[in-house]
Amino acid sequence: MPPETLTPERILEATEEVLRRYGPAKATVVDVARALGVSHGSVYRHFRTKAALREAVTARWLDRTSEQLATIVDDEGAAADRLGRWLATLFEAKRHKAGDDPELFATYMTLIGESGGVVERHVGDLEAQLAKIIEAGVGEGAFHAASPTTTAHAVFAATGRFHDPCYAAEWSRPEITADFEAVRDLVLRGLRG
Amino acid sequence: MPPETLTPERILEATEEVLRRYGPAKATVVDVARALGVSHGSVYRHFRTKAALREAVTARWLDRTSEQLATIVDDEGAAADRLGRWLATLFEAKRHKAGDDPELFATYMTLIGESGGVVERHVGDLEAQLAKIIEAGVGEGAFHAASPTTTAHAVFAATGRFHDPCYAAEWSRPEITADFEAVRDLVLRGLRG
Repeated sequence: MPPETLTPERILEATEEVLRRYGPAKATVVDVARALGVSHGSVYRHFRTKAALREAVTARWLDRTSEQLATIVDDEGAAADRLGRWLATLFEAKRHKAGDDPELFATYMTLIGESGGVVERHVGDLEAQLAKIIEAGVGEGAFHAASPTTTAHAVFAATGRFHDPCYAAEWSRPEITADFEAVRDLVLRGLRG
Repeated sequence: MPPETLTPERILEATEEVLRRYGPAKATVVDVARALGVSHGSVYRHFRTKAALREAVTARWLDRTSEQLATIVDDEGAAADRLGRWLATLFEAKRHKAGDDPELFATYMTLIGESGGVVERHVGDLEAQLAKIIEAGVGEGAFHAASPTTTAHAVFAATGRFHDPCYAAEWSRPEITADFEAVRDLVLRGLRG
């Protein structure tokens, strides 16, 4: 039986597993290679440095959320509904990431602190999705926004309480859902206004 | 000449100075007493524990911002103007605290992390001020809000980017003023909507 082909995706899966097991301070490329049963040279053929590998695994972790949200952007229905659902889904996704596996979440927070532009790129992706929904809302005559891009940036900032990791500790409070709904409604009224 | 009376205010001033000089890890009540030329017993007559003293100095630091904002609440003029000015003044005050003396700011962030309900009380004060302005706006027919208290809580959350210390690093970016204005305008439209 020929050995399974070493793809970037397999390396990234193994890297997440190694990070989960050893933590970000101790995990090495050699650990990843060992977990895959390959030489560390094989890993370096796909990711030229340890930093590049860590950045790629962080981007993959963040992209899982963007991909989930992208389906809402392309949904049928009124832009206001999609925007409300998009914000709720983002909050839900972040809350799950933080609450379901706090250690892995902390690991990714460390990686994000190390990494260059990964988060900026992620935020850019999310704001581009928001801008698309806002633009659709303007087209429907439901939203008013001189610049969908600027407005998307403002909406993202105004809802930070419900997606920015610096608030992760608050996401398990019972009143957080009501708080989210009040901010979401305020933002939606602001877009209509 | 009789010695100056030892007031809580004088003790708090000396405590801030001692914290500034030694940092939160090393500053002691004995240092504060020495700076005032009194025994540490005299300090403990006003603040029963070191924790109580640190909490009082933190509350005083936060109250300076609330007091500055309180004057806007009682100003003349349309509620929408007052709300815009209130948010801008809060942002400006926090930005100055973070930027003018970063070491003292970091010291207070440490104290806030230690303290019990000081921040909750501060946020409660600020949201009560916001609720008063929102209520006035509802009275003018300019704002729509089923519950000024709930809406104040939502407005405070929606503008966190511009007052929550976890964003302090962003407040020196050149684009932050435009970001603030976009969020403020979105929130104001939401209140009118």
